[in-house]
Amino acid sequence: MPPLPTTARGAATSRRILDAAAAEFAERGIAGARIDRITAAAQTNKAQVYGYFGSKDGLFDAVVAALADRLTNAITFDPADMAGFAVAMYDETLRHPELVRLATWLRLERHPAGRLTPGSGDEPKFQAIAAAQAAGQVRAGEPSEIFALVLAMAFAWSPASSFYAATPEEPAADHERRRTLLRESVERAVAP
Amino acid sequence: MPPLPTTARGAATSRRILDAAAAEFAERGIAGARIDRITAAAQTNKAQVYGYFGSKDGLFDAVVAALADRLTNAITFDPADMAGFAVAMYDETLRHPELVRLATWLRLERHPAGRLTPGSGDEPKFQAIAAAQAAGQVRAGEPSEIFALVLAMAFAWSPASSFYAATPEEPAADHERRRTLLRESVERAVAP
Repeated sequence: MPPLPTTARGAATSRRILDAAAAEFAERGIAGARIDRITAAAQTNKAQVYGYFGSKDGLFDAVVAALADRLTNAITFDPADMAGFAVAMYDETLRHPELVRLATWLRLERHPAGRLTPGSGDEPKFQAIAAAQAAGQVRAGEPSEIFALVLAMAFAWSPASSFYAATPEEPAADHERRRTLLRESVERAVAP
Repeated sequence: MPPLPTTARGAATSRRILDAAAAEFAERGIAGARIDRITAAAQTNKAQVYGYFGSKDGLFDAVVAALADRLTNAITFDPADMAGFAVAMYDETLRHPELVRLATWLRLERHPAGRLTPGSGDEPKFQAIAAAQAAGQVRAGEPSEIFALVLAMAFAWSPASSFYAATPEEPAADHERRRTLLRESVERAVAP
């Protein structure tokens, strides 16, 4: 990817492009997204988009990286409280459904099998789970598989769900009921 | 949808179209699928596809209905053994990843929120869960939400996973390890 802009104005343009691209890719996926719509929404032009991000694929990668960074900063992973992590992911997904949608387009369009983001830096989480297992706080099992299961539970009502996708417009009681079920179920599932 | 063919030859053509369409839609989604590729793979023509299925959307609906029927026949839902149901779904998804991919395209492209398939006939499952709750076999909670959670756990390693999608090419021990984790976790999660 070409170097990102170093001026304040360039950074603001780059930010607008990333925001517009996140909305467009979340809505339509990689193949379906149109750079025209992104440049119109970001009040810029194709030359600038390609100058900053190289290609449509490069722009998609930059969008996913930016959103993954925000998620990592917003939610702490504590292997001794995976139920809390799952509930925090439920809430974050409710606020920002576009992240799960982007991950799901990525899965369908680019990575039908295996790890979705091989270089995603999840390994410290697995090491933390292994340490919690050694300390008798978490059940036995392959740490990455326990993580996969907890994440799937957190996304049970996400915009990737094969059954029901929750929205902020629903009554607060619905969300609270799901959070309780999710919290208790993850606690039970990962208990030693 | 126009009436389906009643002759043996018509039924065979319709079957070939559905099979080719399942592969094409699973691979590329609704917007990305091309009727040209489906007619070529099914050795038929557009007039016949539109004659049988009305439109691209009608063909997609028919594909999903056919696969959902197969799934319903292949896997029994017993509220007293939701762990067994989850493991059966893991295995079925491994054999037929296209079903989860189709459901996920449907989610992303058509139904970003709420129930994925409102008229899908899942209500008897919820009634069965409620009866199992009354009989003290299943934990308290909204039956449809318990079902959503169990389904999400079953699909933790499916082609819709935000983390890892399993494939039949992996060692048998990997699948067996996941089945054990899944079975035990669902049992714990739904226990009274």
